[in-house]
Amino acid sequence: MAEGRDAGSTQGEPSAPATDMYPRKILEYMEGFLISKTVFTSCELGVFDVLLAAERPLSAEEISQAVGASLDGMQRLLAACTGLQLLNTHWDNRQVFYSNTEQSRVFLTRSSPLSLYQSIQYSSRTIYLCWHYLTDAVREGRNQYEKAFGVSSKDLFQALYRSDEEMVKFMHLMNSIWNICGKDVVTSFDLTPFKVICDLGGCSGALAKQCTLAYPECTVTIFDLPKVVRVSREHFVTEADQRIGFQEAAAERLTAAGDFFKDSLPVADLYILARILHDWTDERCIELLCRIYKVCKSGGAVLLVEALLNEDGSGPLTAQLYSLNMLVQTEGRERTGAQYAALLATSGFTNIQPHLTGKIYDVVLGHKET
Amino acid sequence: MAEGRDAGSTQGEPSAPATDMYPRKILEYMEGFLISKTVFTSCELGVFDVLLAAERPLSAEEISQAVGASLDGMQRLLAACTGLQLLNTHWDNRQVFYSNTEQSRVFLTRSSPLSLYQSIQYSSRTIYLCWHYLTDAVREGRNQYEKAFGVSSKDLFQALYRSDEEMVKFMHLMNSIWNICGKDVVTSFDLTPFKVICDLGGCSGALAKQCTLAYPECTVTIFDLPKVVRVSREHFVTEADQRIGFQEAAAERLTAAGDFFKDSLPVADLYILARILHDWTDERCIELLCRIYKVCKSGGAVLLVEALLNEDGSGPLTAQLYSLNMLVQTEGRERTGAQYAALLATSGFTNIQPHLTGKIYDVVLGHKET
Repeated sequence: MAEGRDAGSTQGEPSAPATDMYPRKILEYMEGFLISKTVFTSCELGVFDVLLAAERPLSAEEISQAVGASLDGMQRLLAACTGLQLLNTHWDNRQVFYSNTEQSRVFLTRSSPLSLYQSIQYSSRTIYLCWHYLTDAVREGRNQYEKAFGVSSKDLFQALYRSDEEMVKFMHLMNSIWNICGKDVVTSFDLTPFKVICDLGGCSGALAKQCTLAYPECTVTIFDLPKVVRVSREHFVTEADQRIGFQEAAAERLTAAGDFFKDSLPVADLYILARILHDWTDERCIELLCRIYKVCKSGGAVLLVEALLNEDGSGPLTAQLYSLNMLVQTEGRERTGAQYAALLATSGFTNIQPHLTGKIYDVVLGHKET
Repeated sequence: MAEGRDAGSTQGEPSAPATDMYPRKILEYMEGFLISKTVFTSCELGVFDVLLAAERPLSAEEISQAVGASLDGMQRLLAACTGLQLLNTHWDNRQVFYSNTEQSRVFLTRSSPLSLYQSIQYSSRTIYLCWHYLTDAVREGRNQYEKAFGVSSKDLFQALYRSDEEMVKFMHLMNSIWNICGKDVVTSFDLTPFKVICDLGGCSGALAKQCTLAYPECTVTIFDLPKVVRVSREHFVTEADQRIGFQEAAAERLTAAGDFFKDSLPVADLYILARILHDWTDERCIELLCRIYKVCKSGGAVLLVEALLNEDGSGPLTAQLYSLNMLVQTEGRERTGAQYAALLATSGFTNIQPHLTGKIYDVVLGHKET
């Protein structure tokens, strides 16, 4: 017994560890989940929303009353948010008052156009629990939906979309990411030549909106499962939306409903596959890309939008973590630019060009020769 | 409906957010739990242990076979560990091989004298799940043991020590922290004058060992609950241990068994309370400190070992997060140096001196006048 005490001396190590070594980085990694949950809970309780609405710094008492939380718990939460530089503090008569930082106001309030609120909710409620089973996922080499939520994972999107509520949450998650990364993605290459665009698995239409913003002459067809299209029409792509900026494009926007592995695909100049291939095995990816190649117009192209891994395995850390997340939640993986290029080439595409955006999501463009 | 899309325009904000703002820091916070679990799973599967034993870089195939995990899952885990700079990579004939970094070898292998393995296991299995209920904890202002583990939290240590297995895990956690922070803690002040030391709630004896190492003339009495003392004798403070470095001190070391709120306390020159007061309310803290003051020898002292909060609420982040953890798991909180000084003064102690170590745990020394 007495582990962690005397076994080190049996190794005959060349150099004994210096007794003043301190694992600062590892201790930070160990605190990572505390930090995530502090942010998630602050959002969920509406701390940043209350501060936005007040338009003046508030005390812990005022915030706790406004959100219906204990004063003691709220004081600690606000202190941690201060340490995370998500709140500013103001001292008046020995009492502390809090206000949003610019970053919190823009990204953590629910009403902001760049809000990460829905993404945070999904991370907190769904992904956090799934990752409790990471060890099992690595051991078994498959996702842990069944253990985490008691639902079978045979059909991936039946699991993800196991209720309307879950599906809307997932769609909000997609939406909030493209509010932040979408513009860089659609402007990585000049897509002006491609007038008819099809966003396969386009979900809530957030990337389609970015396209219509960046390219006033294009039309975008969102192709997705019927129930996704129904919810998208109800919650995301509304008449009101068309009036604030997308009138011309939106007037021509079509919404097709289908399963892109089975149903016939719309003819288009450009197919966007944003975070689609990372859900699937190489075989399924090639199957889908071959179907696209067939219907794609001559001189057309396919734009893959994914978090690209470095060729030498060195990073980026986010893509490496996402690849583990794909293991925990899907059948897929993140890939390097070369791996995506190989999938595209096998399916007939040529003149393949990767582009790194410096944010989470990068792109790979592949062409169909004229 | 259509949240997160048009509501921002109703706020009449003075400045619209720049569309190229990017929440790099917030996205990092959101990934924190992915990073924690990547480290936890790598430890739990024994990745660092296998690499230590091999004494040469290993391929993903070799590692996955050695630990009994899927190759695909292991490849992704190793990639993420590389991104976290916990593994070195070596390329040979276009194949990648992995080895431990110095930090991983010293802190993440199970057999290292400075191993964090047990602390990581406890964080991964117990604290991670408790924190899934942080929102409820903040709302209700109380711990979430019942929700997370189905055990009543009326008696805190009955919950923490709900089985021998849980108790040993908790004791290993205590142990691994003092292997890293213990020396700084016991050498913050010159404790040479205090020959008879009592470590109240001394648990596995890790801090007692640091005392006997730093002060060859002292004897340390570990005072703890009877079942803790039994396990401590079985697993932590062994004959073998006494032979490797603690002979003189250990020969005189006593182990008392009791509840420090009820039983009579040993007479001593110095009482150490390491991460004890943070478990309890102010009232309970004063009750305990008054009991100590009564039995403490004239000219004696009490040494509080805690993660101190800055007086102005600005940090340190770790202590702020730990204070939330105390909410989720205990009845207590982390406090500022001034708050501990007030508790000590109320209980009769004088000449109160705080000392910051620059690591997680700081100290506050209070004296009983001669």
